[in-house]
Amino acid sequence: MKEIKRISILGTGRVANQLARVLFEKGYEIDGIYGRSSMEARKLAEKVNSRVIESISQPIRSDLALVCVSDDAIGEVSAKINERSDAIIAHTSGAVPIYEIPEGLRRAVFYPLQSFSIDKKVVWENVPFCIEAEEDDHLNALGQLADSITEKVFILSSDQRKSLHLAAVFANNFANLMYEYSEELLMSADIDRSILHPLILETANKVLLHRASESRTGPASRGDLETIKAHQKLLGENNSYREVYDLLTREIYNRNHEQKL
Amino acid sequence: MKEIKRISILGTGRVANQLARVLFEKGYEIDGIYGRSSMEARKLAEKVNSRVIESISQPIRSDLALVCVSDDAIGEVSAKINERSDAIIAHTSGAVPIYEIPEGLRRAVFYPLQSFSIDKKVVWENVPFCIEAEEDDHLNALGQLADSITEKVFILSSDQRKSLHLAAVFANNFANLMYEYSEELLMSADIDRSILHPLILETANKVLLHRASESRTGPASRGDLETIKAHQKLLGENNSYREVYDLLTREIYNRNHEQKL
Repeated sequence: MKEIKRISILGTGRVANQLARVLFEKGYEIDGIYGRSSMEARKLAEKVNSRVIESISQPIRSDLALVCVSDDAIGEVSAKINERSDAIIAHTSGAVPIYEIPEGLRRAVFYPLQSFSIDKKVVWENVPFCIEAEEDDHLNALGQLADSITEKVFILSSDQRKSLHLAAVFANNFANLMYEYSEELLMSADIDRSILHPLILETANKVLLHRASESRTGPASRGDLETIKAHQKLLGENNSYREVYDLLTREIYNRNHEQKL
Repeated sequence: MKEIKRISILGTGRVANQLARVLFEKGYEIDGIYGRSSMEARKLAEKVNSRVIESISQPIRSDLALVCVSDDAIGEVSAKINERSDAIIAHTSGAVPIYEIPEGLRRAVFYPLQSFSIDKKVVWENVPFCIEAEEDDHLNALGQLADSITEKVFILSSDQRKSLHLAAVFANNFANLMYEYSEELLMSADIDRSILHPLILETANKVLLHRASESRTGPASRGDLETIKAHQKLLGENNSYREVYDLLTREIYNRNHEQKL
């Protein structure tokens, strides 16, 4: 198996910054940084003792090139990569299938499942990495690389990654919307939003121990129609809160009761 | 102000058990335990060096009686309490207004916002306590008592507590339903559910630092209609997932875009 030692980074955004820096810290050689803005590329190159790649129409001689650009630019950027490149070409997106990288390249995926900011310190050992490649050798090489960063490496197909991305929308975006609603309800009742923080943390921590279905509680789960009616009255009619309340209450109720709402 | 030193507990369930034990540990005298099942009452009484109260038709001579029974039994149980009782009579429910306790008693509320199990160790200093009383003296006494258990004491009216209870349904029950959906999507794609745990914890931890509206991310928030369409295709039509996905996606989208979905 070919071991990955030298890595090029295509992109200068948050993922590019964070990956370049952790790989540099772990002792990998960052061969070069390529970016639309050569000033941004130079800034990142300086941080990781690297140089700017002026053009990717020349073959990339690294062991790995990470395409860390926005989802809709992955196809375009990787299409510019010279086909005679030795490097494994891996994009870092959760939503984009491996085949957006053109055939003929050693295509792969190296996806850290985390939302990054440019500068915030990342606790890398907890970040799940999802890897995919067409050749076993490439997959093994990426697996070894991921192992050096994190304790959590998952081999997922493009289809699986697509499901994962959707599941993350529920667990992250939609759960956060529930927090938004609850904060707004508290605010309108003149209650400090911190009052619910312990419960929010407890609910999240429970899924680490048990399936979420085992932590189902509350009026809908118990079938407590009196309380549900009181909540509906409090929310009023024809508004977003009420629409969401009614749908999710029905969903929970129906999961626990033979007789459906 | 009358200081609370001696406490009776009415009820033998989870809240009764947990409160009796923490109050006993904090040095309060547990005067007596009353329960429908005198065997359960005896069991709890033994744990907190107390005795069984056989009947509450005699005046309660404690400083405080905590009515720790199910929501729909609060009215019935507290109606049996002798009106000549000296004790402050406080129920421990989030959903029930103070006036379910009969007039003529020194009525109050002493509500720990936490879901308890019978035996699991509670980290009391993090548990928010909501207190309410009709007399300032009683409120002060309950505040002092709560201060000795937790760092987080909130004075809330019955109306505020009702809003809080509803907000908790969003932040806890509905967020947990989102975790259920995400686990099911992962399971059907044959992906280990632990893969999303870091993201779930990160999302929950963020609300401790910022308003949830500031942590709004994902395709609906960005207005990424391509990804939304791909998700909808993956979910199929006419099922719960799809219905919830469409509604919550629209809600998030409309919060970030002038042109509504």
